[in-house]
Amino acid sequence: MTEQESISTIVSLARKRANQLSALSNEKRNQLLASISKKIKNSRNEIAVANQKDIDSASDLVAKGELSQVLVNRLNLSDDKIDQLSSYLESVSKLDDPIGKIQYEVTLDDGLELSRVSCPIGVLAIIFESRPEVVIQVSALCLKSGNAVILKGGSEAFHSNRVLYSIISSVLKEFGLEGAVGLIETRDDVSDLLSYDQEIDLIIPRGSNSFVKYIQDNTRIPVLGHSSGICHLFIHSQCDRKKAVDITLDAKLDYPSACNAVETLLIDRDVQDDIFQEILMALQNKSVKLLGCSDTIGRADSLNIKLQAVSDEDWSTEYGDLVLSIKIVDSLVEAIDHINQYGSHHTDSIITEDQKSADRFFERVDSACVFHNASTRFSDGFVFGLGAEVGISTNKTHARGPVGLEGLIIYKYLLKGKGHIKAPYSGKNAKPFLHAIP
Amino acid sequence: MTEQESISTIVSLARKRANQLSALSNEKRNQLLASISKKIKNSRNEIAVANQKDIDSASDLVAKGELSQVLVNRLNLSDDKIDQLSSYLESVSKLDDPIGKIQYEVTLDDGLELSRVSCPIGVLAIIFESRPEVVIQVSALCLKSGNAVILKGGSEAFHSNRVLYSIISSVLKEFGLEGAVGLIETRDDVSDLLSYDQEIDLIIPRGSNSFVKYIQDNTRIPVLGHSSGICHLFIHSQCDRKKAVDITLDAKLDYPSACNAVETLLIDRDVQDDIFQEILMALQNKSVKLLGCSDTIGRADSLNIKLQAVSDEDWSTEYGDLVLSIKIVDSLVEAIDHINQYGSHHTDSIITEDQKSADRFFERVDSACVFHNASTRFSDGFVFGLGAEVGISTNKTHARGPVGLEGLIIYKYLLKGKGHIKAPYSGKNAKPFLHAIP
Repeated sequence: MTEQESISTIVSLARKRANQLSALSNEKRNQLLASISKKIKNSRNEIAVANQKDIDSASDLVAKGELSQVLVNRLNLSDDKIDQLSSYLESVSKLDDPIGKIQYEVTLDDGLELSRVSCPIGVLAIIFESRPEVVIQVSALCLKSGNAVILKGGSEAFHSNRVLYSIISSVLKEFGLEGAVGLIETRDDVSDLLSYDQEIDLIIPRGSNSFVKYIQDNTRIPVLGHSSGICHLFIHSQCDRKKAVDITLDAKLDYPSACNAVETLLIDRDVQDDIFQEILMALQNKSVKLLGCSDTIGRADSLNIKLQAVSDEDWSTEYGDLVLSIKIVDSLVEAIDHINQYGSHHTDSIITEDQKSADRFFERVDSACVFHNASTRFSDGFVFGLGAEVGISTNKTHARGPVGLEGLIIYKYLLKGKGHIKAPYSGKNAKPFLHAIP
Repeated sequence: MTEQESISTIVSLARKRANQLSALSNEKRNQLLASISKKIKNSRNEIAVANQKDIDSASDLVAKGELSQVLVNRLNLSDDKIDQLSSYLESVSKLDDPIGKIQYEVTLDDGLELSRVSCPIGVLAIIFESRPEVVIQVSALCLKSGNAVILKGGSEAFHSNRVLYSIISSVLKEFGLEGAVGLIETRDDVSDLLSYDQEIDLIIPRGSNSFVKYIQDNTRIPVLGHSSGICHLFIHSQCDRKKAVDITLDAKLDYPSACNAVETLLIDRDVQDDIFQEILMALQNKSVKLLGCSDTIGRADSLNIKLQAVSDEDWSTEYGDLVLSIKIVDSLVEAIDHINQYGSHHTDSIITEDQKSADRFFERVDSACVFHNASTRFSDGFVFGLGAEVGISTNKTHARGPVGLEGLIIYKYLLKGKGHIKAPYSGKNAKPFLHAIP
């Protein structure tokens, strides 16, 4: 957003562009992505200059101890990343066209043909943090699916976001679609945006739990997202020792700050001592801080493993770090109940060789992703073969779990008649509908 | 809700039952519906007594002029209606099982199999007005789709709702599922309910525009519904005379208070005088009050038809009555823009013999239902062959247009591994995923 643009201008332009985008062919949309890809590669210097400004500011904050080096690294738009972004755009353009797909067809009566066809949602608002390349990734997904989008990136990537946005804008301008991607830059702008529930069709906040709740509390716009990733592993009594150990380590250590990392380990009381011991010691050897329920502490103690006590709040805490809470449960049912009560309905896995228990876990665990003998870390749109990921949703409507392009589309019903009126199909001697599926 | 039950008890019991329902076979769910059907037929007297109380109270209000006779008629649970409800339950049980359907399958790697399977949403809250039979209809749809539901009916049907609810409850009790359908009875209870966003997955308010907005403003629970039905007919310059006249009359007169009745007629300036005249006179002959833009008034005047002036507010007013606002437009584009700006994205129809204009209308009109040469009155779940209708949605996420059972389900991802961990698939020398579709 430049100084001259108001939120209302951005929103109404996006609305207008959404209408144009809905009529754009897949070929045109792909040309758009190809042009952005090309322009990014040709703008390396410009991008580097802007990116360096953000890195310098962030480094100052690191020096003052106000920011972690990890966040600074995330800001970096290296030459490699530019190339990756460019190939990302190409891969998105190769995805199946998600719009114009006939989902349902029925002949209501002679000459009265109904179809349900996929179409873009319209205007999306997507709010994300730190990594500036998200500007490109999200714009690509929205344009591919025929949606206009208003973006708000992290303030620490201010200059990088702006330069990437200006690249997209200049290409959109060439296509007569300037404003199909909008950018806003402050928290106040976000607050303003929330009142445009007539113009914005879906908002996807990617951020902290409290931030998502703030959005939910302050808008009528439907919200898609996940507030937290409190994932569980349940080690069943009939588990395989190696699977239990390997998966526990992977789910905690592969990427601890990811939302699909495990936060709570549930262990059946009947799991053998040697397995129990091996898991706990392996975790401690990898510097994972273990917090246990009193039963866990007692049992660990008898095996010479010292644990700290877990608090009630821990069961619903996303550590995002090398911390794991551990609870001993008496049964599969207790494990399922714990997961459904304290989890965030994101991803939960059971380790067992007993098929019946796995089936019951699949049936009863109320989560977007339910796994058997696999690490929670597999919960990801690319891994799932969705081609691209908009985010992971713990919503139970519209789109759940890893959300690909499909989460950015909806459908409309199209009815073709020959002058048909409704009256003859009502009341006494009503004409019946054919409801013939072609 | 009896005096002893609190909202929190009702909600937590529904949550528990949702978990049980998710594991119930289609056969069991159908048995549940059959038992309710049987019990309703065997409880005619009880129902009649309760229903009479509501009718008596309502009739008192009619006598005082505080209620219209139409509303009293809607309350009536005649013997015929009982029979209809009973067959309705049977027809719902015959519908395809919406849950357990495999929507997507992919082999991620050897022994690592992902599937996406339809499942119930969980706990729904559905708020509706007047007609007490909705208690049965909505419960049937929710139970068939494996969802628990909390209902709030119209207060004028207090006794009828209660007796129908008690019939459902006694059957649920036999199945060990008491509380899978909950009933609340006051507006205050609704307010309380809105805070249970962790327990309730979707709320469907069926009521006035302001009521739906009140719900949206006061809860984090996703809301499905339509706030109003401002439907348009656009009479294109190349329309067929008979189709234009017949469809206009049907769309306005077949059931004026329905949400799919037309509220605004857009007429292309190039529509011939005789067609223009015939439409307006036919409407006036049927006592439809016509409100026109200044161009419409001028043109009508020259044809000796007197119209009242429309106000700006009329364009976004749902009359639900024998009133129609009329605007002359200069082009297809102007018609589309008017519809997208003032309509409620519900149902809009174009009358034309020109295929190109119809195609453009289909592409650009941003409504749940877009029709060509057919009355807006066809916008209905039963008509569309969905088997049953939960309501009509003007949302652009989850479910749009007439919503059948499909709107009450979501999916979960199930991953079956053999001890698979994520680490080997990341970093340098990352193992690629197969992503093989079986």
